[in-house]
Amino acid sequence: MTPLHDPSARGFTSDNCAGVHPEVLAAIGAANGGHQPSYGGDVYTARLQELLQEHFGERTQAYPVFNGTGANVLALRSMTEWWSAVICAESAHVNIDEGGAPEKVGGLKLLPVPTPDGKLTPALIDRQATGWGDEHRAQPRVVSITQSTELGTLYTAEEIAAICAHAHDLGMTVHLDGARLANAAAALELPLRAFTTDAGVDVISFGGTKNGLLYGEVVVVVNPSAVRAMPYLRKTAMQLSSKMRFVSAQFIALLEGDLWLRSAGHANAMASRLHAAVRDLPGVTPAYEPQANEVFARIDKEVAARLRKRFAFETWDEATGVVRWVCSFDTTEADVDGFAAVLAEELRG
Amino acid sequence: MTPLHDPSARGFTSDNCAGVHPEVLAAIGAANGGHQPSYGGDVYTARLQELLQEHFGERTQAYPVFNGTGANVLALRSMTEWWSAVICAESAHVNIDEGGAPEKVGGLKLLPVPTPDGKLTPALIDRQATGWGDEHRAQPRVVSITQSTELGTLYTAEEIAAICAHAHDLGMTVHLDGARLANAAAALELPLRAFTTDAGVDVISFGGTKNGLLYGEVVVVVNPSAVRAMPYLRKTAMQLSSKMRFVSAQFIALLEGDLWLRSAGHANAMASRLHAAVRDLPGVTPAYEPQANEVFARIDKEVAARLRKRFAFETWDEATGVVRWVCSFDTTEADVDGFAAVLAEELRG
Amino acid sequence: MTPLHDPSARGFTSDNCAGVHPEVLAAIGAANGGHQPSYGGDVYTARLQELLQEHFGERTQAYPVFNGTGANVLALRSMTEWWSAVICAESAHVNIDEGGAPEKVGGLKLLPVPTPDGKLTPALIDRQATGWGDEHRAQPRVVSITQSTELGTLYTAEEIAAICAHAHDLGMTVHLDGARLANAAAALELPLRAFTTDAGVDVISFGGTKNGLLYGEVVVVVNPSAVRAMPYLRKTAMQLSSKMRFVSAQFIALLEGDLWLRSAGHANAMASRLHAAVRDLPGVTPAYEPQANEVFARIDKEVAARLRKRFAFETWDEATGVVRWVCSFDTTEADVDGFAAVLAEELRG
Amino acid sequence: MTPLHDPSARGFTSDNCAGVHPEVLAAIGAANGGHQPSYGGDVYTARLQELLQEHFGERTQAYPVFNGTGANVLALRSMTEWWSAVICAESAHVNIDEGGAPEKVGGLKLLPVPTPDGKLTPALIDRQATGWGDEHRAQPRVVSITQSTELGTLYTAEEIAAICAHAHDLGMTVHLDGARLANAAAALELPLRAFTTDAGVDVISFGGTKNGLLYGEVVVVVNPSAVRAMPYLRKTAMQLSSKMRFVSAQFIALLEGDLWLRSAGHANAMASRLHAAVRDLPGVTPAYEPQANEVFARIDKEVAARLRKRFAFETWDEATGVVRWVCSFDTTEADVDGFAAVLAEELRG
Repeated sequence: MTPLHDPSARGFTSDNCAGVHPEVLAAIGAANGGHQPSYGGDVYTARLQELLQEHFGERTQAYPVFNGTGANVLALRSMTEWWSAVICAESAHVNIDEGGAPEKVGGLKLLPVPTPDGKLTPALIDRQATGWGDEHRAQPRVVSITQSTELGTLYTAEEIAAICAHAHDLGMTVHLDGARLANAAAALELPLRAFTTDAGVDVISFGGTKNGLLYGEVVVVVNPSAVRAMPYLRKTAMQLSSKMRFVSAQFIALLEGDLWLRSAGHANAMASRLHAAVRDLPGVTPAYEPQANEVFARIDKEVAARLRKRFAFETWDEATGVVRWVCSFDTTEADVDGFAAVLAEELRG
Repeated sequence: MTPLHDPSARGFTSDNCAGVHPEVLAAIGAANGGHQPSYGGDVYTARLQELLQEHFGERTQAYPVFNGTGANVLALRSMTEWWSAVICAESAHVNIDEGGAPEKVGGLKLLPVPTPDGKLTPALIDRQATGWGDEHRAQPRVVSITQSTELGTLYTAEEIAAICAHAHDLGMTVHLDGARLANAAAALELPLRAFTTDAGVDVISFGGTKNGLLYGEVVVVVNPSAVRAMPYLRKTAMQLSSKMRFVSAQFIALLEGDLWLRSAGHANAMASRLHAAVRDLPGVTPAYEPQANEVFARIDKEVAARLRKRFAFETWDEATGVVRWVCSFDTTEADVDGFAAVLAEELRG
Repeated sequence: MTPLHDPSARGFTSDNCAGVHPEVLAAIGAANGGHQPSYGGDVYTARLQELLQEHFGERTQAYPVFNGTGANVLALRSMTEWWSAVICAESAHVNIDEGGAPEKVGGLKLLPVPTPDGKLTPALIDRQATGWGDEHRAQPRVVSITQSTELGTLYTAEEIAAICAHAHDLGMTVHLDGARLANAAAALELPLRAFTTDAGVDVISFGGTKNGLLYGEVVVVVNPSAVRAMPYLRKTAMQLSSKMRFVSAQFIALLEGDLWLRSAGHANAMASRLHAAVRDLPGVTPAYEPQANEVFARIDKEVAARLRKRFAFETWDEATGVVRWVCSFDTTEADVDGFAAVLAEELRG
Repeated sequence: MTPLHDPSARGFTSDNCAGVHPEVLAAIGAANGGHQPSYGGDVYTARLQELLQEHFGERTQAYPVFNGTGANVLALRSMTEWWSAVICAESAHVNIDEGGAPEKVGGLKLLPVPTPDGKLTPALIDRQATGWGDEHRAQPRVVSITQSTELGTLYTAEEIAAICAHAHDLGMTVHLDGARLANAAAALELPLRAFTTDAGVDVISFGGTKNGLLYGEVVVVVNPSAVRAMPYLRKTAMQLSSKMRFVSAQFIALLEGDLWLRSAGHANAMASRLHAAVRDLPGVTPAYEPQANEVFARIDKEVAARLRKRFAFETWDEATGVVRWVCSFDTTEADVDGFAAVLAEELRG
């Protein structure tokens, strides 16, 4: 097949517009050839299991899946019953960006809470954590948080620990949507388990796609008593990969060395560079604190329109004019500097 | 990542135990680098759309997805309403091998019909094609057939045309589960459209994984009036790939030249060779006619147990002792001959 | 309100075309007046609980609901998990006559088995009782039988005991759809518990509507360890009656004395009388043995059409010409004799 | 059956703790006797259809069901597709008080909006009315309002007209949860159609249970083009009554004369009397304006506890101490005055 696109063109739309890290592609090649048991019976999935236990703790169980929506719905379904509800931030991906899949295929009732910065707190959770024993109310069973959040902000390990302690006290468990978990670890300068397992999180959707994989996420169950029937639920969630060895091999490439951290740290650094370059420009009003690999800012809509002719990026909120710029493992300093220069130029009019 | 397996070991368990065809892996590499719009806005998905129109007809619309269960549930959901039912063979993958996903996440009522060979006929369809207008009965809306079938048999183009004409006469549409569609085309020596679009099929789950892809299937809508809201349904079915360019690039690698046909034809030829080598062995009773890349036979359970120490394969039916041997794009003549020799040896006791 | 219909006109369409037994209507009146806690907190529901414990055993828990579809879906949901399947006769009401509600709102996978007479057996159950531990197969968890069956036949207590023992041996539980449970008890001349609780049945849909109630069924859980979360599931199944005292009062009217048995026994006797009067008529071919209050027979379609001008009844199977005649608590001997006379006349041409 | 309760005891918990109005019970008796076609083929359901056309307009189609949850889920399902979402007030019964049935059995995504008084406005609707065409967002399709609201407040006919116009402009339709529709009509002193059909509402859940019925609600479709497949959806929603003649007869009793209005007007008058008697008591802080038959107020929790020993009523919000007092068709002036006197006494300590 002949390439049809320009491999040197990059934008700021999303980390899922980037391609595959060369080391990941090499791992796929290394896992190729011969036959391996399908559906997870292969040696690579077994190896991934060990690696995730090293990163997240001995009790960890790994369930590779295809994508983030699948990981989240599978994780939440395995943590709930037919009569359960899930407390989440109103801005959570599960609430606003999955087409209603949690409700429509998962049968889940979401209990969203408005937040200023995408982050839940024990007090915010309490606004929905009521009604146990009342048959008229879907029973709150899980708190779902996102790290880094959909607004590019971060929970500290202590904040997550406080949420988990509170949820557990109330008889609930905690799910963490970690589509950008590596970015959070890089920014917090903490091992993955420090703000997940050790903070009391029960189940994690651990993202790979946005950190340089071709495709693939893993539902990382760090507390097996919080879930039920994962194999059956993964199958009915249509997330059971037949050639699973290749999902696992990609994650091995990430996790065996420090590729996961290198790529995420680089993306974060590029976002910081971008933020630093534009935050003081007249006409740029930063929105939310850019703690990981995403920068949100309010700019004039006409400026945004002109800028978009040169660089791809998303409008986050049509009403307020907030836009989002996302950096990836492959974003270069030149990309950032070039973008900032053009933005400055456009702002000058 | 270091390889953990023996790339020269191959068995007969399933065509999804094989790896990735080198030309497919090369296509992924060619599509890599730079940024491309996610979720199908990329140039490769656009190109795939053209290619599928060439193969299946001008009106064709292509919806790449992750896996076969996803393709089938998405296809059937898009062809039905909340109150619909789907007529299928009792042995259909959607009925027996998807963990209940069609019912559990798709809300579909299946109306299974026992068949001798995995193939529906107009008369068999009529056993369930009743009750329109009766609110007590889920309304039959779709006939779903599989080509090649789960039992390794084939419909002729004429048989499919008769089913489609009958279904359409009754106000139903026709879905074809084509996880092994390429094997069928190779065996029938017909273009893909001859026994799909031209025979009246409305929607196809076109399989890639079992024909040498890393992952990926395409829901091929050849009659757009038979479906609704595919983009929304694909998202809620958790089958919307963010880095879709790579699913599409793999299919381009299959379809731009004749790789799809070469690989499938080779797998079929190996199955024929296997069948020829073992069918007359005392102790082997062929079950079903091996028309594509699968061979079914009844052998003694102790022989099967001993044979399995050397070669991986599946027991198809515990009760009857029928086993299944599947050939893949990478099965070699030596693999087949070696297997047949060992089987003959084990049968001799 | 002025009556709009002829209260002396009766047919043979279904026992749900009859009205309300006067003693039941009186009970509703007796329970009226004043306020009572809604949603089951009332004294009548508490009293019904006691009565059902007397009939079905000490551990019994009663959950009144609105209708039979609701009772069945609630019962099955409470006995299953998201990944479960239910084995039933192909002719079961849950499979053919509930519009797909078990699948569409219950998320249940049904595993139907063809039967000659509407009755499962251990051997028939074994045709679907396979695949535990296989993530590709919805996990068989419940056997659902109907007593009396949809074909008017009966299980003996011993046959039910054999099914329950077999199901329990396999790790499954047993649901009994008893829309016509009273008819079965009357025909078997056994107490209700003799062929339910004592035979090993776990959960019963106990019908009231077809035995002279205005509306109402009870999910009778005789083995509480077989179900989970009934209160929540009843609510989400949209079967939680606010003025539940009236459902319960109707069942008290049935069960406190022998009204349940009198009415059912009378309906059965009328069916026997009908069967005796018509079975030997030339042109009448009995289908299935009429063991409860339903008679099935094959008659000429033109005869059926003429007969229907005088008496309402259903065609059971368009293909074979089998019709169904159902007797109710209010069917009279004169109704039966008049019907038989007209049938004989029509058959003479 | 002997009465087990005190028919002179009444409280203020809910209008569904009251019993059946004697005229309604008489109507059930009048519709009894003889056989009538089941599932809605009877003459009473036909007559109800005519009556509802008189009240709501010529195009009206009536679908009797069992209860309010069923009416709401059926109505919303018939107005939506698998990919749709429903905008509602955060305090809406469908969002907080149906155990998640809309999501769990209806597959509906709710988009709740916080409101000060339980009432949506075009501006509040706009907070969720976004994202059409975006496959990542469940597509807003219906606006659901409640009249009178769950907080005892009322929309004017003009306010409803504005909401409907706005929703229709956006391509959405409007559902009205009218569990207490009669109370609204009585309070507004308007015919039913003035603030429903004539205001642009498309589908109504018309409540009977809270207005003196034994059981029963009607989904009143005033704009048939807004719904699809009601008969099939009612069946799969497990809301198809077999002896439907009795649901219909009860509604005929309500609607043929002015019983519906008399009962509702009386309940409203009692609530006004209660409000007038208590609003100025020291220690009572009215919450929301009592516009129909419900009064909300904040009182000291210990006072509430003592008061509850004498009169039943609900705490509405544990956090704020707001309680709810509901009046019914059978609430007497003496009930109200007695309650107010005891409250005054308890407040004095």
